Amino acid sequence: MEPKIYMKLALELARSAEGQTSPNPLVGAVCVRDNEIIGTGAHLKAGSPHAEVHALMMAGSKSVGADLYVTLEPCAHSGKTPPCTDIIISSGIRRVFVASIDPFPAVNGKGIKLLKAAGIEVITGILQAEAEQLNRAFFHFIHYGKPYVTLKAAATLDGRLSTRTGDSKWITSEAARTDVHHLRHIHDAILVGVQTVLHDNPFLTTRLPHGGKNPKRIILDRHLRTPKTANVITDGAVETIIFTHDSDNAETAFLDFPLVTVESISNEVNFLEEVLGRLAKKGIMTLFVEGGSQIHSSFIDAGLANELYLYMAPKLIGNGKLLFINKDRNFMSESESLNFIDVRQIGEDIRLHARFLT
Amino acid sequence: MEPKIYMKLALELARSAEGQTSPNPLVGAVCVRDNEIIGTGAHLKAGSPHAEVHALMMAGSKSVGADLYVTLEPCAHSGKTPPCTDIIISSGIRRVFVASIDPFPAVNGKGIKLLKAAGIEVITGILQAEAEQLNRAFFHFIHYGKPYVTLKAAATLDGRLSTRTGDSKWITSEAARTDVHHLRHIHDAILVGVQTVLHDNPFLTTRLPHGGKNPKRIILDRHLRTPKTANVITDGAVETIIFTHDSDNAETAFLDFPLVTVESISNEVNFLEEVLGRLAKKGIMTLFVEGGSQIHSSFIDAGLANELYLYMAPKLIGNGKLLFINKDRNFMSESESLNFIDVRQIGEDIRLHARFLT
Repeated sequence: MEPKIYMKLALELARSAEGQTSPNPLVGAVCVRDNEIIGTGAHLKAGSPHAEVHALMMAGSKSVGADLYVTLEPCAHSGKTPPCTDIIISSGIRRVFVASIDPFPAVNGKGIKLLKAAGIEVITGILQAEAEQLNRAFFHFIHYGKPYVTLKAAATLDGRLSTRTGDSKWITSEAARTDVHHLRHIHDAILVGVQTVLHDNPFLTTRLPHGGKNPKRIILDRHLRTPKTANVITDGAVETIIFTHDSDNAETAFLDFPLVTVESISNEVNFLEEVLGRLAKKGIMTLFVEGGSQIHSSFIDAGLANELYLYMAPKLIGNGKLLFINKDRNFMSESESLNFIDVRQIGEDIRLHARFLT
Repeated sequence: MEPKIYMKLALELARSAEGQTSPNPLVGAVCVRDNEIIGTGAHLKAGSPHAEVHALMMAGSKSVGADLYVTLEPCAHSGKTPPCTDIIISSGIRRVFVASIDPFPAVNGKGIKLLKAAGIEVITGILQAEAEQLNRAFFHFIHYGKPYVTLKAAATLDGRLSTRTGDSKWITSEAARTDVHHLRHIHDAILVGVQTVLHDNPFLTTRLPHGGKNPKRIILDRHLRTPKTANVITDGAVETIIFTHDSDNAETAFLDFPLVTVESISNEVNFLEEVLGRLAKKGIMTLFVEGGSQIHSSFIDAGLANELYLYMAPKLIGNGKLLFINKDRNFMSESESLNFIDVRQIGEDIRLHARFLT
């Protein structure tokens, strides 16, 4: 069988744990001997066994002389679990196929070196682009020390977030709104501005027909205007972190709410950058920004937005709040550029998925 | 064989002549005996034989006792060609399958009645929705006496037609611009405002790698400001019709240009409606509007827009000319509504295709 077939399966296994491995990457592994799959595994959660270990456990003694397909370079260091290279070597694996190199400083090529030193043949580069794409948030997180930021917006065809009277319920159909809850499920944290809290009083939880994981809730609130009665404060569903300039009241404002933290940031200029740095330190690898135009445009203009999900409803409403209010460009050639990754119809609406290039 | 299979083929034959049958509908026909296709035909051009005639000619004497599949009710009247019902009856056809009824007053059920009176079994309704969809422009034209209007626009993701300095070259990639030329090819006429002529001096011709049909060019120019040096005036590629309020100069302004006609319209209030009525009288069944926001919004707000092709480039440019400037609505529930028909990626851009519901 073509090695790509097995690596594809390993990638599917990796993808199955999307949203639950942070700050660890998604990894899948497949163990094969004599064209027979003898073990499969995926990394499911930080602190739990790595994908290779699951696959080798399943293979048991059959692993001697077998091939191992793994979507990310096996780790060479002791973290919360022992190094995978040791386990692979002791299991008698003959060849290891690796899709992408682990950029994590403690690994980053060392895993492959150790395997080779032990006499194991290592073949790299199979479905590398797909593997890097799958872990783009992890790669970004390791490389920049910041969460991977995905913006989400819903607008009419004439690019409005609400009518001139402020009505925005609902722009999109139920199917699109359910899709958003799936995106919440696969992100570590969700971010909005205090304006959204004041205007919509949202819960920002994941509400899917069969349940879902709640992302942590991040509120940008420079003047600490989040009301104590807001749903994100009182519902106790999941942690809420408020970032503010108001250092005087930061410590005491929400003392009564154990799941609410307030962090004060004095840096006015690089406020967003500072927020992202602090979120990274908390292990938040993926951030879902459900902002209004102000929040979105700040992320974009600061070069801190990585992806965009834009839901467009087949409606025209005339004047109203604009979808984006970005930095003005004089010429088309100077535009902020994206790449469309995917576009599809969801219910009555369409969903554009794009990546920022700059 | 399933009758739908043959009707599907007949619909494909009909569709093959898209853009060249106006003001006639698209029609395809398939003649079948003993599960063998013995004739196929399509209506190719107004004045030329109808689809049924082509299919029956191909079948020859085999047509006796055969079935005929036709996407539109056979005509019962002598127009530029003799009535198809006579030809079907004399060819000895046993059964006729009809997808949609011809709304043209001289037919409109009479064709089916005549066939039945001659002892032919007639089965209606097979793939009726598809057949009506295919001829939606023709149905609209017959029903309202107006061309079917399709708007086309190209905008950035932030809904802008140009930067604040007026730069719009290019919003979309070459693949999307080529796609627009295909849409020009299948329309009878193309309409722009004089602003577009003054600002871009376009040719408005169909420029496809392997050639294409030029639509007639319609300019809305209330104060007759189209320059005599404009490309649409001087290139002699195809007829140009200018609609104006300036009755004083209408007759003489472009006397030197045999392909240019100026028509004066005194009705200020229903200007667009009057334009569409006159175009219908000229046999223009499909109108492609490549307007700016002003022209597009006039069509939409007057309820005269039927479809929209919106190309969106993955770019943000900040302030600039807005894509749409429609009538303001206070609530989402009052929005001008469309239905997405199709959405796809074309080169680097995406193309939304939607139908107006109101």
